[in-house]
Amino acid sequence: MSAQDEVSAEGRVSAEGGVSPEGRASSEARLARVRTLLDSVRADGRTSLTAPEGKVLADAYGIAVPGEELARDVDEAVAHAAHFGGRVVLKIVSPDILHKTDAGGVIVGVQGAEDVREAFHRIVANARAYAPGARVDGVQVQELLPSGPAAQEVIVGAVTDPTFGKVVAFGLGGVLVEVLKDITFRLAPVDTDEAQSMLDSIRAAEILRGVRGAEGVDRRALAEQIRRVSQLVTDFPEIAEVDLNPVIATPEGALAADIRVILATEQPKQRRTYTRAEILASMRRLMQPRSVAVVGASNEPGKIGNSVMRNLVDGGFSGEIHPVNPRADDILGRKAYKSVTDVPGEVDVAVFAIPAKFVAAALEEVGRKGIPNAVLIPSGFAETGEQALQDEIVAIGERHGVRLLGPNIYGYYSTWQDLCATFCTPYDVKGPVALTSQSGGIGMAILGFARATKTGVSAIVGLGNKSDLDEDDLLTWFGEDPNTQCIAMHLEDLKDGRAFVEAARATVPKKPVVVLKAGRTAAGARAAGSHTGALAGDDAVYDDILRQAGVIRAPGLNEMLEYARALPVLPAPKGDNIVIITGAGGSGVLLSDAVTDNGLELMEIPADLDAAFRKFIPPFGAAGNPVDITGGEPPSTYEATIRLGLEDPRVHALVLGYWHTIVTPPMVFAELTARVIAEFRERGIDKPVVASLAGDIEVEEACQYLFERGVVAYPYTTEKPVAVLGAKYRWARAAGLLGGGRPVGGQSMT
Amino acid sequence: MSAQDEVSAEGRVSAEGGVSPEGRASSEARLARVRTLLDSVRADGRTSLTAPEGKVLADAYGIAVPGEELARDVDEAVAHAAHFGGRVVLKIVSPDILHKTDAGGVIVGVQGAEDVREAFHRIVANARAYAPGARVDGVQVQELLPSGPAAQEVIVGAVTDPTFGKVVAFGLGGVLVEVLKDITFRLAPVDTDEAQSMLDSIRAAEILRGVRGAEGVDRRALAEQIRRVSQLVTDFPEIAEVDLNPVIATPEGALAADIRVILATEQPKQRRTYTRAEILASMRRLMQPRSVAVVGASNEPGKIGNSVMRNLVDGGFSGEIHPVNPRADDILGRKAYKSVTDVPGEVDVAVFAIPAKFVAAALEEVGRKGIPNAVLIPSGFAETGEQALQDEIVAIGERHGVRLLGPNIYGYYSTWQDLCATFCTPYDVKGPVALTSQSGGIGMAILGFARATKTGVSAIVGLGNKSDLDEDDLLTWFGEDPNTQCIAMHLEDLKDGRAFVEAARATVPKKPVVVLKAGRTAAGARAAGSHTGALAGDDAVYDDILRQAGVIRAPGLNEMLEYARALPVLPAPKGDNIVIITGAGGSGVLLSDAVTDNGLELMEIPADLDAAFRKFIPPFGAAGNPVDITGGEPPSTYEATIRLGLEDPRVHALVLGYWHTIVTPPMVFAELTARVIAEFRERGIDKPVVASLAGDIEVEEACQYLFERGVVAYPYTTEKPVAVLGAKYRWARAAGLLGGGRPVGGQSMT
Repeated sequence: MSAQDEVSAEGRVSAEGGVSPEGRASSEARLARVRTLLDSVRADGRTSLTAPEGKVLADAYGIAVPGEELARDVDEAVAHAAHFGGRVVLKIVSPDILHKTDAGGVIVGVQGAEDVREAFHRIVANARAYAPGARVDGVQVQELLPSGPAAQEVIVGAVTDPTFGKVVAFGLGGVLVEVLKDITFRLAPVDTDEAQSMLDSIRAAEILRGVRGAEGVDRRALAEQIRRVSQLVTDFPEIAEVDLNPVIATPEGALAADIRVILATEQPKQRRTYTRAEILASMRRLMQPRSVAVVGASNEPGKIGNSVMRNLVDGGFSGEIHPVNPRADDILGRKAYKSVTDVPGEVDVAVFAIPAKFVAAALEEVGRKGIPNAVLIPSGFAETGEQALQDEIVAIGERHGVRLLGPNIYGYYSTWQDLCATFCTPYDVKGPVALTSQSGGIGMAILGFARATKTGVSAIVGLGNKSDLDEDDLLTWFGEDPNTQCIAMHLEDLKDGRAFVEAARATVPKKPVVVLKAGRTAAGARAAGSHTGALAGDDAVYDDILRQAGVIRAPGLNEMLEYARALPVLPAPKGDNIVIITGAGGSGVLLSDAVTDNGLELMEIPADLDAAFRKFIPPFGAAGNPVDITGGEPPSTYEATIRLGLEDPRVHALVLGYWHTIVTPPMVFAELTARVIAEFRERGIDKPVVASLAGDIEVEEACQYLFERGVVAYPYTTEKPVAVLGAKYRWARAAGLLGGGRPVGGQSMT
Repeated sequence: MSAQDEVSAEGRVSAEGGVSPEGRASSEARLARVRTLLDSVRADGRTSLTAPEGKVLADAYGIAVPGEELARDVDEAVAHAAHFGGRVVLKIVSPDILHKTDAGGVIVGVQGAEDVREAFHRIVANARAYAPGARVDGVQVQELLPSGPAAQEVIVGAVTDPTFGKVVAFGLGGVLVEVLKDITFRLAPVDTDEAQSMLDSIRAAEILRGVRGAEGVDRRALAEQIRRVSQLVTDFPEIAEVDLNPVIATPEGALAADIRVILATEQPKQRRTYTRAEILASMRRLMQPRSVAVVGASNEPGKIGNSVMRNLVDGGFSGEIHPVNPRADDILGRKAYKSVTDVPGEVDVAVFAIPAKFVAAALEEVGRKGIPNAVLIPSGFAETGEQALQDEIVAIGERHGVRLLGPNIYGYYSTWQDLCATFCTPYDVKGPVALTSQSGGIGMAILGFARATKTGVSAIVGLGNKSDLDEDDLLTWFGEDPNTQCIAMHLEDLKDGRAFVEAARATVPKKPVVVLKAGRTAAGARAAGSHTGALAGDDAVYDDILRQAGVIRAPGLNEMLEYARALPVLPAPKGDNIVIITGAGGSGVLLSDAVTDNGLELMEIPADLDAAFRKFIPPFGAAGNPVDITGGEPPSTYEATIRLGLEDPRVHALVLGYWHTIVTPPMVFAELTARVIAEFRERGIDKPVVASLAGDIEVEEACQYLFERGVVAYPYTTEKPVAVLGAKYRWARAAGLLGGGRPVGGQSMT
């Protein structure tokens, strides 16, 4: 504990990563101390720290460790052991021996001068035998750690993830958890709350709170260890890895038994970055252009340059459309230019429909003309092994400040502009959903699904190789775009996980972000690798950090599409109380299962409300939640009970289970439900309502009718409507609209 | 180990539950010994056994335990300890003290005469202080169990489940697993193979095989402990519960440290059972009737008795239809009878469409007439609290041998007979799928889904309150029915889990059985309870035992419906090698994820086959599996690669990822795929092929076209086609058609 007191005296790092004014000077001293040490290790040509060096870092950051001293000879060892009192551990100290246990370099539980003496000699002899040439600096004498049933072994660590950079990890120690992989990750640094949340994010979280009468561990102390490690790697990016393994957590505190520190051998290379203002400026011109040039426009049907021209014209784009083709005078009745540099006036977007080998030269001209956006449809770059060609166009883009979309994409749609800059078919159902995909195939699935379900779309954007523009640029724009109320993204990798998280955190408080991360599994990641050369990160890291960013992760393609379609239809819930009203008891059971599966909870219906519901249901009808109105009931019973649910301010969301009967046919149910909900909306009462319709084929029409009127309704499934409601709740929690979660937007990323 | 040797000498219980001839006599002696002991415990008015009594059972069944002796005085304790040598455990023996540790009645690791003496006195004093009136029979002296890193604590137990009867359980011991609930169940008894499979069924199975260089435990010895416990509770149904907790498993063996045995206080009541031949005889007349009577037939539109009559007539049923109504002369132009007893000739089915209160009297007449089946549509029985009314009709049915379907159901369809004995609308797409539902609402969802997807159906049956006929009767019939190739069942509970498992095991080797078990979650189980009065069992037990029975469990309603529709379309796979052929790399990634998610594996493509594929794909196309033919390819590339996959006998199943392009439009892809598959089928090569179609709305028509021609194809989803393939593989394994699984049909259930 003394180490912790020491750092408190020095000025604790605050939760926001800042430092109190009185602590600033000593904080700088601390940074300098660690800097000096790391520089000396590098000067030695080493990438791993010795235990005493690790302890210097621990002391500087207030990472609690057992008392320990370096003994350079046997007499010092005896003296240190006597000073600590009780049992001690002896460990070899050698820069050349990383795995001390393998070398016979650790003896635990030694007590008394004679035993310490004997152990010292044995350790040194073992080390000499294990690695004859190794430099031995001495033997570390360490206080023995707490043990017994109240002492819980945990692991705290930090690594450098290729996608997300510095990431802090926490898990329970021991063989069992190594096998069960019960570990959780966060972007570093974390504040105290985030660190505490990690303790609850492992599956075996209960153990830390104490089970079978055992006392729980000191959560604050444990969270502090996590926070301090995360701060250490943030302050010193050259630290590639820190491992406190194990940390012994007890009801009284948390002590790191061992600290292992590895330094990086190289720094990641930087790409050109753009400010938020710059991103918004170029994205606005991309998504709301007044003038578009088509490089490679063609009169020849079947050519991509012809399809793009036709789609722009047929789609109804009201801005200027300028074909560029050195071998044509006019294309589709419009004057064609030899080069984009010949196009009159300002151009916002140049769409490329020429073979890969001609792109670089044309892009130079786009740059000279000052066009801020190049949409690169052609393939034949990194995805076919032509990395050099892709590097070349990226360099041209960066030099001129031209943002590149693609290459290797189908193009993009901006429906509110009637802009269809793709070689696919136009799409004209304007609405609130922006969809993006890394893959063209998935883009086509998006288009077909949207058309089949009449999903209102604000944009569909292909990202392909993501040589420049990527998800964080698009998120930044769609977050501000008033036409977009929900963003759904298919991705196989993230070029810069931190930039994505930052953009997501800024966006999520305003609108939901759905992500389908392909390549979740080892097989999928291998396939992604072969597909775009993307190195898929460890999915556990993705999963935890996407959740930390407040993103709704869709488990599969169909869920991504359904969430995108349905989330904007529902209002945000204002509380956790969900009531199921069902005409079919069997649907009620399955809907209840789905509620639990989606992390939601059925309201405990208060007695007065229960009595009110009971007035409308048969005497044998089931009490409680689900409210089972039974199958033979007329439309008036559905209407009366839905009204009760909407009227009562203690109820926050409704799940309806409709059963097709002659008494209440599907469209009768749909019309009454839509009418009642519209009436309450006029009165300012707007709650999420989802419905599962069990019945003959007419229920399909009823579902579409309901969907178009603000009720998320599906036929032949009890799972989908509740899954959508669950996604809406996950968003509401992440956006800070409900208790039980925490806002993600307010937290600093630096 | 001595206990094990002892039982081997006595004649080991064989894997099939039988006994070798030479062991029969001693096996009988063993049974008699346990019988005598249990009777004496009951005579004492006790329901729990003492430790020495537990040891008698352990010895009789060869359940390995540490050496132990009862010491009635301190000198005996010293003598026993000296006899065992090494360290021992002392435990109080008292029928009045169940929780020995709480009473201070256990001291561990005592060695030497002096310490044993001291510990004996201390334990007895503690017990007296804890429970002053308790009878103390002495102190048990026990060999100390193995400890250290190679000793793994596990739990072996058996309980009496309300649904499944005797069930054996296995899990890892310790706090962590209690928290993570890592435990697995099987119907008792289990044979050696089944017991071994339990060791692999826990999530932390790896630990038993040894991790971090530790040696694995003796699996055979551990499986034997499980098998023997399962045999004990099977032989003595009055044993409600056995707990070996912990069993210490080491590389050398497995010793039960403690055996706790609880006796049941009451036996479950018996219902009338029917033989397989009786079930088949009455089910045949139910599903293939020549004459149907409608009790409560009516001319009045809107009445159920009118709907049933009209559906029978409009559905085209070619057998006799006899309306029964005391107040009408003819109904829908057919002669009406006052009573079923007046109907001429033999009647196979009486469909009831009269109020609940009239059912009993009419059922008596059905019984007198010798009609074997009563289909009870009316509600107003157990589900509305009228349990007595339901008990009454069950008694009438049992007395006359009339099987009851329902009450509280929509009726049933037998499509190959053009029989529509329901108040819903007729259904006429004949096909191979039999569907059943406990709930009417789910029945309507089945009907609507089937109609929307043109699913070919052999039967749809409502089960409702299941007062008599239930899932095992239907399984027995559908297993034999040549018109049925796949059975899908929605259920909220099972009346008799063992009968269901027996029927499933007999059916699964012939055709897949899909089960949607509603009430999986606590909320769902509560809702089920309020719905049909069904006591939902623990879902973990259901899950393990349904798997043991070879049933495919659908996670939700929509999956049940999709599996039912799709499984009969696919041929059975003949091996594990799956190849993905895709035009969209992005779909390939998601399909790979889905393959892993569904427990399937991508084939490692041999070099010669890889070279063959490569001839048809661009030079930059990805090697390996998925085979990425890239998006711009013509129909001939799809065709050539599909041919390769079908032709090569090392490939067992294909997953196709289609990408909509102008070069290969959806219907072109569908036609070529269907044509190639038909051609190979003619040649006797029939492999499961599933497809995900990513594209514009035309892909929906293409999917329907493919589905009707033997390819399971879905638009806008990469998950569903692979989930169906996964379900087909799960069935094939359970049916014993593939390596890696085991047949479920061959195992005796008695």
